[in-house]
Parts: sequence; structure tokens; C-alpha cells
Amino acid sequence: MGILRLAHVDTRTPDLELSTAYYTEIIGMNVVERTGDEVYLKCWDEETHHSLRLRYNARTGMDLFSFLVETEDDLHDLERKVERYGCPVTRVSKGESVGQGESLRFEIPSGQTMELVADLDKPGGLLGKRNPAPVPPPGMTGIAPPRIDHMLINAEEVGEAHAFFTQVLGFRLTEQLLDANGHKLGVWLERSHSPHDIAIVNGPNGALHHFAFWLDDWDHVRKAADILAFNGVQIDQGPTRHGVTRGNTVYFFDPLGVRNEVFTGGYQADPDFPTITWTEDNFGKGLFYYENVISQRFLRMHT
Amino acid sequence: MGILRLAHVDTRTPDLELSTAYYTEIIGMNVVERTGDEVYLKCWDEETHHSLRLRYNARTGMDLFSFLVETEDDLHDLERKVERYGCPVTRVSKGESVGQGESLRFEIPSGQTMELVADLDKPGGLLGKRNPAPVPPPGMTGIAPPRIDHMLINAEEVGEAHAFFTQVLGFRLTEQLLDANGHKLGVWLERSHSPHDIAIVNGPNGALHHFAFWLDDWDHVRKAADILAFNGVQIDQGPTRHGVTRGNTVYFFDPLGVRNEVFTGGYQADPDFPTITWTEDNFGKGLFYYENVISQRFLRMHT
Amino acid sequence: MGILRLAHVDTRTPDLELSTAYYTEIIGMNVVERTGDEVYLKCWDEETHHSLRLRYNARTGMDLFSFLVETEDDLHDLERKVERYGCPVTRVSKGESVGQGESLRFEIPSGQTMELVADLDKPGGLLGKRNPAPVPPPGMTGIAPPRIDHMLINAEEVGEAHAFFTQVLGFRLTEQLLDANGHKLGVWLERSHSPHDIAIVNGPNGALHHFAFWLDDWDHVRKAADILAFNGVQIDQGPTRHGVTRGNTVYFFDPLGVRNEVFTGGYQADPDFPTITWTEDNFGKGLFYYENVISQRFLRMHT
Amino acid sequence: MGILRLAHVDTRTPDLELSTAYYTEIIGMNVVERTGDEVYLKCWDEETHHSLRLRYNARTGMDLFSFLVETEDDLHDLERKVERYGCPVTRVSKGESVGQGESLRFEIPSGQTMELVADLDKPGGLLGKRNPAPVPPPGMTGIAPPRIDHMLINAEEVGEAHAFFTQVLGFRLTEQLLDANGHKLGVWLERSHSPHDIAIVNGPNGALHHFAFWLDDWDHVRKAADILAFNGVQIDQGPTRHGVTRGNTVYFFDPLGVRNEVFTGGYQADPDFPTITWTEDNFGKGLFYYENVISQRFLRMHT
Repeated sequence: MGILRLAHVDTRTPDLELSTAYYTEIIGMNVVERTGDEVYLKCWDEETHHSLRLRYNARTGMDLFSFLVETEDDLHDLERKVERYGCPVTRVSKGESVGQGESLRFEIPSGQTMELVADLDKPGGLLGKRNPAPVPPPGMTGIAPPRIDHMLINAEEVGEAHAFFTQVLGFRLTEQLLDANGHKLGVWLERSHSPHDIAIVNGPNGALHHFAFWLDDWDHVRKAADILAFNGVQIDQGPTRHGVTRGNTVYFFDPLGVRNEVFTGGYQADPDFPTITWTEDNFGKGLFYYENVISQRFLRMHT
Repeated sequence: MGILRLAHVDTRTPDLELSTAYYTEIIGMNVVERTGDEVYLKCWDEETHHSLRLRYNARTGMDLFSFLVETEDDLHDLERKVERYGCPVTRVSKGESVGQGESLRFEIPSGQTMELVADLDKPGGLLGKRNPAPVPPPGMTGIAPPRIDHMLINAEEVGEAHAFFTQVLGFRLTEQLLDANGHKLGVWLERSHSPHDIAIVNGPNGALHHFAFWLDDWDHVRKAADILAFNGVQIDQGPTRHGVTRGNTVYFFDPLGVRNEVFTGGYQADPDFPTITWTEDNFGKGLFYYENVISQRFLRMHT
Repeated sequence: MGILRLAHVDTRTPDLELSTAYYTEIIGMNVVERTGDEVYLKCWDEETHHSLRLRYNARTGMDLFSFLVETEDDLHDLERKVERYGCPVTRVSKGESVGQGESLRFEIPSGQTMELVADLDKPGGLLGKRNPAPVPPPGMTGIAPPRIDHMLINAEEVGEAHAFFTQVLGFRLTEQLLDANGHKLGVWLERSHSPHDIAIVNGPNGALHHFAFWLDDWDHVRKAADILAFNGVQIDQGPTRHGVTRGNTVYFFDPLGVRNEVFTGGYQADPDFPTITWTEDNFGKGLFYYENVISQRFLRMHT
Repeated sequence: MGILRLAHVDTRTPDLELSTAYYTEIIGMNVVERTGDEVYLKCWDEETHHSLRLRYNARTGMDLFSFLVETEDDLHDLERKVERYGCPVTRVSKGESVGQGESLRFEIPSGQTMELVADLDKPGGLLGKRNPAPVPPPGMTGIAPPRIDHMLINAEEVGEAHAFFTQVLGFRLTEQLLDANGHKLGVWLERSHSPHDIAIVNGPNGALHHFAFWLDDWDHVRKAADILAFNGVQIDQGPTRHGVTRGNTVYFFDPLGVRNEVFTGGYQADPDFPTITWTEDNFGKGLFYYENVISQRFLRMHT
């Protein structure tokens, strides 16, 4: 089946304690493991080892993002395809990465480092697998999203990035933003039958725009905004609705300036989903349906 | 018992058809009566004749706002008090105003015309009084708020307006905004045991800042925003939450520039409710809790 | 102004520790004070000393329910009226009751003991009165309702109880249930401009049917049901909607069998609200709008 | 990729007009096509021709249920597998069925007729594919679910049905109910990365238990219940929450007794989702988390 979903995002922070405090106390993730200058965190409903790695580094940024593939055969098949496209692939052996086995790493055309891995440790989620409660215990700390959902990266050449993600990696295009000449300015891509597992929008190569946590409901979006405001976290945009994906959302920044999102809603994106096309003159509503304005802070600010 | 609640707001519009179309098709009010250049509208759950009067006039603005008092005795008692304060009172006889009997009119210290009336026609609400459904019929047009909720007017001297509304009219102060010297910049006042029936914020005398419709739920706030955006109505702010009143809200403009709000939530403001005080340096969160910023457009733009 | 609202309900429990654990950990009230065999609890948004008193006693039941009146003058005025009706009134002096000053107690025609009090200690709510957050801190324990809302008692002669509450105590009738002969089977009465502060339904004299906590939203009703089910609390009915009051609700039992409710929604019941009448043949929808059935367990089970 | 999702359910009704009125006016589907004694309906967000076919027949029941497969190759591959298992397959040629091309039909081990089809007409959904609004137009009729979601059928031998659906058709098991001896009493199966596309629970062979429409939110579940009650549709259970799937739900009956459901929520069921197991003694909470009771009406009543 190939790539299944976003597995984890690995970021750098110059203040590991502050970032850890934020992701545990305000986002509500749990620390799974600490190793020297690295902290591994997961959400309560995630079966696998972690969905966020924080690494101490003087400069905020993203080390890599990692997608889960179904089988080792898929991994090898994708290795061949990526190399055939012209991207050198590095194999990272079992034991070199915490919480997972062998993986592949390569630089995608827009400059970010991507990882593919089939073998993730699966310690299981909070609720268990035998007569589980359908809800987490009352009194969870912070926003407590059940899981990471998607990410958005920038690319100078969105068309090239799109080609790589669809032709080489097998992503499907759910939505696209075209300029007046029909060139791609943004693409939304999925493997998990959701509106997007990764989106790529015009901007500087190498940049991370945001990563997003899933919430179950519009009321949880409000609760997230309440928790953020209560804790003095600056909200970037929202609560609002996207035209693209239809989802409801709040954007905000972690203490070192990495943009986070909480996201809910959207359609069921089956593999036969016909692509939606946005034109630049209508994209105000595509970006933020209620505001109908293309926020330069939103588009130009990234990690 | 004196004043009970906001009864109706009477505004002027240079395009009566456009305004009527907006308040019926997008807000979802019903036209109760038309008389020459006046249109009377009500929300589905209002028992009385109308809560909004639109009058054709070349210049957008507010003619008056009207509060219901419990009895004719209350009316006469208030008449004496208003006159004793120094505001001349005009009696409007039964038959002169559509949908109501005798009323009092006077200019309040901040320059707006206020009306008091005990005798409102009560044709009843949509659901009736015998084994009524607890919800309106499916498929209501537009936002369909159950009722008007409150209004905000401006005053150059908020302290003076506050004194008039509390000492003469018997309003109770739920919240106030003070500057560094303890002078009042804003006051929130109630008679109906809600966080506010009228608020008065520093600004030009005579101005109407907005009037607000009640919604029952945070999800209805989203639905209102969806309907506004679907119809191309520009949203001024929200969906968001106020620190003041705790309510959730969306602000937007009618086609002629009168600011409307949909509002839900807030606390039970019993008569023994101790006043909440906001200081100017913290008022970003008081105004819009998520944005934590004092929008100049919001404060400076009015009708 | 007379009576303002329900102040507190005083119940008896044969297991004080168990009841206290339930009202603190599952309901999420705070213990304000303990005195020997009494525990005083309040909700986070209540300004006054307590809204629930638990007293150790071998037999579960209600000692009394207490309504707040605005002034001492109101108290004396109501004393005269109650005595004139024929109910002997006992004065309880300041210092005899925890958290309040002088009060009046009397047996109402349906046999329950009612208290009236003007002087409640007001330690204030959780959020404070200076630049308060509009939401409680994240991570509150249990359901965490902001306040007590209303109660329902039984009466063999509902019409007589109605007369006492309206003519003597000044309650207003928002809704009534009539049998085929026009006799009252149930009345819903308010003083706080809400659909009901107390309801009286046909049943054995002296009985408490339930008391209810306010919730702000339909999503909080679901969260309450989730918390109850997570903790193994048996739900009696709901989440559902009442036809009467329009509110959304869940009913459940405390560990000793006292029925609790969480309630949200309903209309604004201004003093000029025209009474709604239900006929017995339509009361299935009045009681539980979705189920449309008159549950005998619900009607016949009380404390 | 094989089977993608539930495409349509084909039912029989002795009163075609009444059933059509119900599915259009109360559920809010649109009639796509009528041919003699057949009515084809779809939900507003469905891209394909229809998701429900009503056929006049003196006896209420289900003709067949149809799943979409990705390609014609998948169809032929599945044909071989089904026949190898021992189920004779009938090919239905293009032109024989309204709204779709060639399909396969066969009786599954539990006696229902199943169809597989790769070629569905795709007239598109309501919102279109170019700068679409993220919400349907205000004022939709009825409940207006965006799409059909899943179905539940009965089987005398759930283990055998499970084997057929997983080993032959490639479904994945998300949850299962086991009796004390470890025999399967219920299985929940998916292809679309949702908690279930089809569930099979112990009961008479050939029976349809219910089919379900997707809703986006808990508030829409309430609105659905409000619409059902307003129209006098008898609600079978809910609003409530399932332990199985975690979803929120209301069950009700169409005018001829076919059980419908509206459903929202649940987890993301990726292909690596570890199966959840319920034991019979805990299944009260699995079935209806709030009620914690195994309703015999729910389990024993089907079409």
C-alpha cells in the first residue's frame, strides 16, 4: 500500500526545557523518552512511539519529517523510485534512531529532509485494546489532541514538488491553487484518505510552515483557543474555517516560533476524489473562509 | 420592576430594499409590517411586535433605541426621574407608533434618543404556547437568531452616561473598563439578568456601535459565520470570545455599514453580581480574548 | 425585588465520604468547609458560600432547599406573607447556619422545608473580579459546572403548591402541565429570568425529584455524559432535550440515589413571558422530546 | 487498491412515495433519477450517481448493498477470489443498472446479496470543484448528511462472515466482540480508513440491521434528533455514544421500518490499526456507552 501517514516531525529548539514544557503542558503531549538532548513526545491516541521529536540546537528549525510506509517491501520499492528520480537516499540502520527500525532519508526537491520508515515501535495508545473507554480519562492536561494530523512545507517550485510527491511517492492531489497562468502555487496531498497529509505552498525551499494536530470537534477548537489564550500563547489566526479542506482551525506559535495548528473537520478524501482547483483571485476564501483575506504574516512567516 | 429589556432598535437606511433583503434572507428575521418607508422586523422567538425598524432615509444611522418597562406605573415613575435629571421627555401617544402604545422619548446625556414603552403589541412567537416544539421548524432561512440581545452605544463621557443609566434608569453595572486614573472608558449594564442589555464605550456622542442577536450555541456561531461568508458578508471580527461577558461572538456589517453581532454564552448576571473591573493595560484580552489586541477598526468604526 | 434564585440544597447522606468524593471528583465541586458531619460545597462560578450541603444521616433525603432574597426588607415582607398564608415560620439567627446570616424556614404546602435568606457569605468565584479570564483554568476536575441551576420537587396537590409559590412567594409561571380536566400536574416557576428556578410535579409530598447544575453548551452535556460513563455513574436519561424549557439534559444518580441533572439551553424567560401549557396527551414530547415517552422510572423515582 | 467504500444500498419499500418523501424531506437526500418503480437518491457531498435506491415491492427489505472497487482489474481479481471461495458470481453488464457500468453480484455466506462495481457515474457533488464553498448553501432541507457512511448486517455465523470479508474481500478488522469462548459475535470492518464500512453482528442470515449517514459534528447529531422529533419520526436510541468506534449516534426508523443511523466521530483507522476486542460482559458500554445496557430491541429488530 506504500505510504500510510505522517509519522513524526523532528524539530530543533534552542530551549529544550521550554519547548518540552509547552508541548506537554499546553499541547498536552506525553514525553515518551529523553536521550541527552532529545525529547520524544506523543499524543494520547497514537499507537506508535512518538510523533514529535525535539532536539536541542542553537537554531530553531526542522531536522526532518517522517512518513510511515506499510511494509519493508514498500520501503525498498520507494527507495528505488526516489533514487531513480535523482535524489540520493541514505539508509539509517535499526538502532540508530530511537523508537523505530531501519529508515530511508533523502532531500526532497524543495530542500527539506524526508524520512520513510516501515518499522515503528508500537507501545500503543492510552485507551488500550480490550474493552477500551471511547474517551480519554477526564482531566487531561492541555489541549490533548488525539494525534498529529498533517504538515505544510514551502517550495520555490511547487509544481516540481508536486510531481515528486505524486509520481515518485504516490501521493494523491486533493486540492491545488493555480496562478493566472495555471502554474501551481499550492498543492494538498494525501495518503490516508483525509484532505491532506502534507501540503506544499510557494515559499522558500527548506522551510516548515506548520504542523497540525487533529481535534475531534468544533467545540474542541474553541477549547484549544481558550487554553492557548489562558496560557498567553499568541494565536496567529482563528478560530476560523478553511475553504481548502473545509476544516476548522486555529494557528499559533510554539515558544520558539514554530507554527502549530489544531484542525478538525474536512471531507472524506477517497482515492477517487476529484481534485479541487482554486484560482488566485478566489484564494482569500480558500485560505480563511471567514476573513476572506490572504494574510501576509500567514504566508510569509515560517520556520 | 422597571425596565425589563431591549425592545427594538430603529435604524435608517438609504436602501430600504437592500437592508430588508439582508435582514430577512441573511439574518433570517421576518417582516411583520411595512408602512410606506418603514419596515418592521422580528426574530422567530420574540413575543412582541418587532425588534428592528428600518426607515428609509438618505443617511444611515439610528433614530432611537427602545427599552420595555414592566408597567405603565413604571413608565410614569421613570418619566419623573428622567425629567428630574434634566432631560426633557416627549410623550408619544398610542397610535403614533406602529406595534406599540404610549411611549416616552428623550435624549440621553451621550446624545442618542432613547425610548421607554410598557405597551407592546404581542402577536407571539413562532412556536406558540400550547405543546410547542422546543425548536423552530427545520429549514429556517439565514442565521435565524431567536431574538435581539443587546446593543453598544458610544459616549464621550462614559462616566456621565453610566450615572444616568444606573441612577436614573436603574441599570446594574456588570463590568467596567477603567483608565489608569480610574475614569470609566466602558460600562456594561443589565436589567434582564444577562451580562449586558446595553454597553457604553468611549467614542463620539450619538453613535451606535452595534446591536447584537442572541444565538444558543457555539456551533450556531460557526453556522452564522458560514452563512455570512457564503453570502459574501464581510466579517469584522470572529468567531472569537470576549473576555468581557465571556461570550462567543462574530461581528459583521449590514449592507449599509451598521455593525451587527451574533452573541452567545456569558454568565448569569443576578442583581447581586459583583462588578468586574478591567484595566486598560489588560483590555486586549477583555475585548477579544483570543486575539488579545485592541482593534482600532473595532473601536473607531460606528454608525 | 424579592426572591432572586436558588441558593443551596441541603441533603442527607448515610455515607458522607462517598457522597463528598462523588460531588468533588465527578461533579467537580469544591469543598468550602467541613464541620463535624456536614460538608459544604460550591461550583467554580458561584460567588456565595455554598450551593450544596451534605449532612451525615442514616437516611438519604433532603433537609431543606434555600432561596436567596435581595434584601432584609424582602425577607421580612416574605415572612409576613408566608405566615399570613398559614405556614409557621422559624427564624434562624445569624451564627446558627454556616456561610450565611439570619434566615427563615417553613414547611411549604407540599411538605418540604424551604429556607429564605438575604445574607449569604460571598467569598467570590474562581475567576475573580479584576481582569478575569473568561474560562476556568484548563484541567478542572470532573464535570465542573459553573453553578447550580434549579430543582424539582413533588407535590400531591400541584395546584396548591403553585398558588403558594406564585401568590405568596412571587414566582412566575413559565410552563404548566394540565390534565384533561385542566388540573395542574406540573408547574415550572422562575424568579431569575430563566425557564425555571423550581419545578413542582405531581408526586408524594416532601419528595425531592432532582436538582440540576448548569452547563454552558451542548458539547458540555456530552462531556458530562462521557465523564459519568467513564466513572461508572448510571445515567437515568439523556443526553436528550426537554420540550418543557427547550433545554438539553442528562439525568443521573449520586451514589446514594439522589437524582442529579446537568442542564443547558432554554429561552430567556422575561417577567412578561406568556405561560406555555402542555396537555397530558402531548407530554411525552414535553418531558423528553427525542424519546416522546413518559418514563415511569423518571416520574416515580425520587428521594 | 481493491475495495474503496460503501457505494449504495438498494432497499425495497411497499410505499415508494412515502419512502421517497422521507428520504428527501427528512433525511434531505436528493432524487437523482426515477425509473418506473425505482427512485435513486444521493447526499449532497457524494460525487457518484446515488447512494440509496428505493424499489417498489410489497415486502420491505434489502435487495443488495454495493461496494466501490478502484479499478476494473480489481473487479476481476475479486471475482476470481469470490468464486474460488465458492460463491457463484453474476456479472451485470453495463446498461443493466442505472448510474453504473459493469458489476459483480454474489450471495455472501450470511445470505445477503453483495455487489462490487468499479464504474460509477460521477455527476459530482453539490459544491463543485472550482473555488467551492466549504459548506452547503444555507437552508438545506432536512438532516442533509454529506454522505452515506457504513452499514450493519446480521449473520448467524459471524466468524464465517468475518473470514469471507477479510480473506476474500480484503477488509481489515478494527473491532470485534467475542463471547466467553472466544467466538466472534460481532466484527467491524473497514476499507476506507474509518472505524467501519461494514459491521456484522450475530443475527438472522440475510438481514439488514441499519445503514448510516455521516454527520460532521456532535451538534449536527442534536440537530438531526431535533428534526426527527419535529417530524414525528420515532427515535430508536440516542443521541448517545458508542464504545465501539467511539462515534456519536442516533438510531431511528424510516416509515417502513428500515433502521437508519446518523453517525459522527470515531478514530482514524489506518491499515496498521491494532484490533480492539470487546468481551460480552463489557459490551453494554461497547454498544451504548451512556446507557451501558444491551437493548434487545436494538439487537433483535432488523429488516
